[in-house]
Amino acid sequence: MFKVNEDYLKLPGSYLFSTVGKKFRAYQADHPEKKVISLGIGDVTQPLTPSTISALHSAVDEMGKAETFHGYAPDLGYDFLRNAMAEEYKGRGCDIAADEIFISDGAKSDSGNIQEIFGRDNVIAVCDPVYPVYVDSNVMAGRTGTYDETTGTWSDVIYMPCTEENGFVPQLPERVPDIIYLCSPNNPTGAALKKADLARWVDYANENHAVIIFDAAYEAYITEEDVPHSIFEIPGARTCAIELRSFSKNAGYTGLRLGATVIPKDLASADGHSLHPLWARRHGTKYNGAPYIVQRAGASVYTPQGQQEIRDLVGIYQKNAAYILNGLKEGGYTVYGGINAPYIWMKTTNGMTSWEFFDYLLENAQVVGTPGSGFGPSGEHYFRLTAFGTYENTVEAVERIRRLG
Amino acid sequence: MFKVNEDYLKLPGSYLFSTVGKKFRAYQADHPEKKVISLGIGDVTQPLTPSTISALHSAVDEMGKAETFHGYAPDLGYDFLRNAMAEEYKGRGCDIAADEIFISDGAKSDSGNIQEIFGRDNVIAVCDPVYPVYVDSNVMAGRTGTYDETTGTWSDVIYMPCTEENGFVPQLPERVPDIIYLCSPNNPTGAALKKADLARWVDYANENHAVIIFDAAYEAYITEEDVPHSIFEIPGARTCAIELRSFSKNAGYTGLRLGATVIPKDLASADGHSLHPLWARRHGTKYNGAPYIVQRAGASVYTPQGQQEIRDLVGIYQKNAAYILNGLKEGGYTVYGGINAPYIWMKTTNGMTSWEFFDYLLENAQVVGTPGSGFGPSGEHYFRLTAFGTYENTVEAVERIRRLG
Repeated sequence: MFKVNEDYLKLPGSYLFSTVGKKFRAYQADHPEKKVISLGIGDVTQPLTPSTISALHSAVDEMGKAETFHGYAPDLGYDFLRNAMAEEYKGRGCDIAADEIFISDGAKSDSGNIQEIFGRDNVIAVCDPVYPVYVDSNVMAGRTGTYDETTGTWSDVIYMPCTEENGFVPQLPERVPDIIYLCSPNNPTGAALKKADLARWVDYANENHAVIIFDAAYEAYITEEDVPHSIFEIPGARTCAIELRSFSKNAGYTGLRLGATVIPKDLASADGHSLHPLWARRHGTKYNGAPYIVQRAGASVYTPQGQQEIRDLVGIYQKNAAYILNGLKEGGYTVYGGINAPYIWMKTTNGMTSWEFFDYLLENAQVVGTPGSGFGPSGEHYFRLTAFGTYENTVEAVERIRRLG
Repeated sequence: MFKVNEDYLKLPGSYLFSTVGKKFRAYQADHPEKKVISLGIGDVTQPLTPSTISALHSAVDEMGKAETFHGYAPDLGYDFLRNAMAEEYKGRGCDIAADEIFISDGAKSDSGNIQEIFGRDNVIAVCDPVYPVYVDSNVMAGRTGTYDETTGTWSDVIYMPCTEENGFVPQLPERVPDIIYLCSPNNPTGAALKKADLARWVDYANENHAVIIFDAAYEAYITEEDVPHSIFEIPGARTCAIELRSFSKNAGYTGLRLGATVIPKDLASADGHSLHPLWARRHGTKYNGAPYIVQRAGASVYTPQGQQEIRDLVGIYQKNAAYILNGLKEGGYTVYGGINAPYIWMKTTNGMTSWEFFDYLLENAQVVGTPGSGFGPSGEHYFRLTAFGTYENTVEAVERIRRLG
């Protein structure tokens, strides 16, 4: 008599972005005449750049001929891509070897799966608010205790509130966690940890034998000098940090799927178990590599031409971010983020809850965003807008919101 | 102080195919002048067919233009592919709806991840020998008890020996399992369950509220009439079975990565929890969909032209399978499988263990296969050869082995 994983049943409601999508589609179905603009889910809208398109076509041609056909990829990724990423680390002054980089189908899978190599009794700490996958995947693994509907928190999770008061910078928690999730630049607040902030975290993790899972998915949006693009720019990170990398937001690969996880060989638990071979074992057992054609595309991003193209691509979204940030500010709204990130973190008006504000914007401005409370209790009364729309839609969305004000 | 997942540490040695690959490469490095033929890992060698190549090129072009660009895929797969697969089920007389089909990046990921939606205290049953991912992924989840080095078995796993004596057909076990993994046609033995055999399993599962995870990765190789291609051809399967589908061996997508898992909405635990929403939740939380371009390629497989092409492709490997089976039989070897599967299950000679035979063939015939014992204790003294080589290599490998005899 089989039994289901009861930890799955503890998850309240459905995945945030599925709910947003459902509400969006329901409204559109009821009001087919209205043009709804989505600045909700963090999906990009610009096409893939010429280097990627051309790399894909070439790789597809290779797959059509016996002499150049590629079957199963090496478990951990093709050397041509791992080497290209290792070179980038070198250029940033980070000591990361190619064989410490595990190629994957994206940061969502990796950030959901990485908890698996840790014991069930580890205590996690998360920024509040933050990308929901960190908490949800730990709920599914039975690591989070019980859910309190009133506070929207789990009994065994350490929340690090990121609020207006602390400039959205997570503070060292009183209770020491075993696993610390940091996302910088942060999704959803758009706040980024400065070098000194991150160094404090690295020291703290090393002192306490904690591990930091550092999600660097938005590093391409950093514009300020003293904000590190990688945690491995910080001395000491090799013994305490895992880094998650994504091609989704820099190269626009949300529909192509490519990412990587970096685990230094120096990283081990206090009782001497290295994490690198455990993650390699997970890849070897439960994963069969990212498609050859996609890995070839990923490598094209690291050519000089590819680098220029993604700078231009990111530039388009950065322009949108600045437009939203400044436009809403001028309109009298309280807004944060947008400088080192493609996300604008907006305070709701008239004391509305995040979901009330979601409905309000959808009904009155036909603009879809993401309710801040979906990212954690401290996200209540906030709202996330993304810079990933087209410029025209972004401008129109800002105007529509300003008209409400 | 973080702790690792100790269940990972219980796994003996490394993943079977990684070890085979390492030995292969080490021998080749020491003997660069020898031409080693690999009939080991089940990787295909024929290029992708014209329909797939053309679908990929078109989809890549779409991704290069803003109007036709595709970002995040729907969590559970594009309708165009789910509908095409549902049509195929309909044609086979199976009652499966499109929204019961979850598109993924391949059967290895799905067969490794599917155990996650079940509670930790379920007892699994596996064919012995079988594809190692079923057991290994359950080891990693802490579901298998302790490992006995002498017998090569786990204390909490029910093994169903598939041997010469029972025609390699798994028999209903004495102790009733909660989760039953069936792979038919079987990897590695090549034996396939006939309709009556499979009906017995479906009835047994329904009577005992057990769930069958049916791996249909090799269904395209079935040549006999009374061997079902899908477990959903069997009445009653909708309340007890999950089916894993792969594009790797029919369409040659080992390097492209595409698969699907079918979970009927009728399938629920005795205490009333449906599995369909749990798997949907896993997809929504830890996975971001197979690439649009790959799903487009997958849909091309279901066009009349695509179907003809994969029949031809499978035919090439079937010809190899027949050549190995008959060639070795004529050479006096004891061999099984190869009729409904791309695998030939060969008895070792002179009482050699599987790994001794591996070394023996590598050193004396420069042929790589996969040691049967790597698939389970009843695989000892057997050896798996695959039909996925080129015809020329296959012929040469058979001749080399015959010369030893």
